[in-house]
Amino acid sequence: MATATPAPSDVTTAVDLGPATALSCRECGARSPLGPDFACPECFGPLEIAYDYSGYEAEELRKRIEAGPASIWRYAPLLPVPADVADKPNLNPGWTPLVKADNLGRELGFTAQLHVKDDSGNPTHSFKDRVVACAIEAARAFEFTTLSCSSTGNLAGAVGAAAARAGFNSCVFIPHDLEQGKIVMAGVYGGALVGIDGNYDDVNRFCSELIGDPAGEGWGFVNVNLRPYYGEGSKTLAFEICEQLGWRLPEQIVIPIASGSQLTKIDKGLQELIRLGLVEDRPYRIFGAQAEGCSPVSAAFKAGRDVIRPVKPDTIAKSLAIGNPADGPYVLDIARRTGGAVEDVTDAEVVEAIKLLARTEGIFAETAGGVTIGVLKKLVETGQLDPSKETVAINTGDGLKTLDAVADAGLTTTIRPTLESFRAAGLV
Amino acid sequence: MATATPAPSDVTTAVDLGPATALSCRECGARSPLGPDFACPECFGPLEIAYDYSGYEAEELRKRIEAGPASIWRYAPLLPVPADVADKPNLNPGWTPLVKADNLGRELGFTAQLHVKDDSGNPTHSFKDRVVACAIEAARAFEFTTLSCSSTGNLAGAVGAAAARAGFNSCVFIPHDLEQGKIVMAGVYGGALVGIDGNYDDVNRFCSELIGDPAGEGWGFVNVNLRPYYGEGSKTLAFEICEQLGWRLPEQIVIPIASGSQLTKIDKGLQELIRLGLVEDRPYRIFGAQAEGCSPVSAAFKAGRDVIRPVKPDTIAKSLAIGNPADGPYVLDIARRTGGAVEDVTDAEVVEAIKLLARTEGIFAETAGGVTIGVLKKLVETGQLDPSKETVAINTGDGLKTLDAVADAGLTTTIRPTLESFRAAGLV
Repeated sequence: MATATPAPSDVTTAVDLGPATALSCRECGARSPLGPDFACPECFGPLEIAYDYSGYEAEELRKRIEAGPASIWRYAPLLPVPADVADKPNLNPGWTPLVKADNLGRELGFTAQLHVKDDSGNPTHSFKDRVVACAIEAARAFEFTTLSCSSTGNLAGAVGAAAARAGFNSCVFIPHDLEQGKIVMAGVYGGALVGIDGNYDDVNRFCSELIGDPAGEGWGFVNVNLRPYYGEGSKTLAFEICEQLGWRLPEQIVIPIASGSQLTKIDKGLQELIRLGLVEDRPYRIFGAQAEGCSPVSAAFKAGRDVIRPVKPDTIAKSLAIGNPADGPYVLDIARRTGGAVEDVTDAEVVEAIKLLARTEGIFAETAGGVTIGVLKKLVETGQLDPSKETVAINTGDGLKTLDAVADAGLTTTIRPTLESFRAAGLV
Repeated sequence: MATATPAPSDVTTAVDLGPATALSCRECGARSPLGPDFACPECFGPLEIAYDYSGYEAEELRKRIEAGPASIWRYAPLLPVPADVADKPNLNPGWTPLVKADNLGRELGFTAQLHVKDDSGNPTHSFKDRVVACAIEAARAFEFTTLSCSSTGNLAGAVGAAAARAGFNSCVFIPHDLEQGKIVMAGVYGGALVGIDGNYDDVNRFCSELIGDPAGEGWGFVNVNLRPYYGEGSKTLAFEICEQLGWRLPEQIVIPIASGSQLTKIDKGLQELIRLGLVEDRPYRIFGAQAEGCSPVSAAFKAGRDVIRPVKPDTIAKSLAIGNPADGPYVLDIARRTGGAVEDVTDAEVVEAIKLLARTEGIFAETAGGVTIGVLKKLVETGQLDPSKETVAINTGDGLKTLDAVADAGLTTTIRPTLESFRAAGLV
């Protein structure tokens, strides 16, 4: 993706995306005007948003945020969105619960506080509503009329729903064999939903081709040509966690890895809070979680490699099944720089972890959440994560979307509606 | 249920449930101490909570609420819960979005603001989390160790999850043939989940029997012997709607009817806000929504009858499939007193309404939400509801739990990952 020819842009920085001032290359630092671009015109490196935060005073900014809406728009001053974003039709995601996971912590041997950031509380029940909400503001600014994406499922639903509310057409692309819950949810909003005979990496390659083709003209692909804007939405997870902790950095965070974008943007968000003086600077460790059946980043981390070797995914954690993760190298950097790690668990451990989280905290996570909790458990057991330090694990999605993974968790028994039948069942 | 022998109670008003002071009979007004009772010892009428609100000053109370947590516990001073409820382990439901439904309003011909109160944002994605959270505080006060309920599905999941977080055992009873999403979600939290070979009314009758039996000793049935406390949770829908409107009554509200409890408690909540001086007193109209295949209240309303004739439910809206709704007569009273109505729609209209809400607002409702939106549409079309008055429709649950209803909303097409294959599909 990073090597595709950048789409021509005639958009200047006159576009109103709040504090965002330019696109900036993550590799060579070259600046270009805000536009629907994703690869550096100089070196083809990935583009990020550059901001002007110069007018902010910490205490004033904190008060402004705290007085803001109960959604990601409380952080509008730190996102590439116009100041009046909360008044526009959108799904207003975010401000999801940071749950004190005392029962789970006890079971895993924590002596410090363990929290679960439960992003299944978002409008379409995954963290993707955050990134899509930011991409939509860019799509408005660049006057796109159709929203599109390549998706492992959650993003398709988030784009379909957000497009419906915000008044865009939508056409999204997914592997044709996803879970029924994800397919129906993506299709119900009335946009076009195209199944691709292939895996996510095939879908993603196809979308990159489509961008350069007349058939994709006027389309904003939220995770391709709007990717720099889209990615910023994940910073809000870092912002919320710190604010919900009372404007404090957690000591350890465990984050699932698909493309790796979420993890890198959470790190970026934490760094911004430090730089702005909203939290005190102190060490934190970032851990990445993968499923064994799609663990190219974990494999590179364990082997001490800097290069990610792409894999062909084979795991029930389909929302993490990206065999060639674009931000993999940055994830490795962050895990190593912060003293964290990248670990993986088997599909059986994923299922066990879904049930563990449900049984202890009443949170029903999708398979990606099972990967995160399973890795959390493994990290403690192998001594890589310190249970005497305050820790946050992120649940990015909802168990209702991946029912098959825990289909055995059905009825304990079936009885006739009589006391005799109940007593015979042997439950009491 | 109202005619069952009340369970003996040795609990006095010494129990700390905040402003709650006693149980009070809805029919004869007789008072009894706070306890796990649901039928009046004098006349077998249903019991409600009586409060001491005498110390409240409107402006002070409003400020206290506004400074409270982003959950139903901001209204703790108006609920039968201890003052420190937010510090106890529970799911902290509520404070769900009140969505400005401009697209839907336009399509239905509204000239005033239409809102959807979207309760799918609750922890287990239905309004049941509100009522269960209140019942749990009563269960703690009365020292029950097991939580139970009869359920059409959503309540089972809410009880299972809340019991897990709060440290109770759970054993819940559902019709054995519910939607897979509801069964798996109810089972995943690790409690016992018992399927009953019968419909909801059979399940409910069985639970009433179980309460008088040694097998059910020490069990808090949230919607039977804890029903007075449980029901109060629905008042928070009224509180939130008014606060989110800027402490103002809506002019019209459309509410689905299962047992009818939610509708009656929303009316109670509105009346409390008026009495406490938190909103200005002005007329409002309450409308009830049923599915044609289970419409005993709608039938009585249309026929001008005061008596509900029980029916055998036959509808895809299983969460509303209560053929003998306990609060039906009170619903009739409220609809008539406020100048509202009770209406019903066919299953086909339910499906159409689910898609309408998804397509216009990006909200994926379960079948119960389809009933509400379908009835809203029909009420406007038949002139029963005035589209020039501010209106709120309540979506009580999540589409992911009733996927089968919209299973045809799947892939638009499947293609190979090539531009040729995409062009051949004829979408652009």
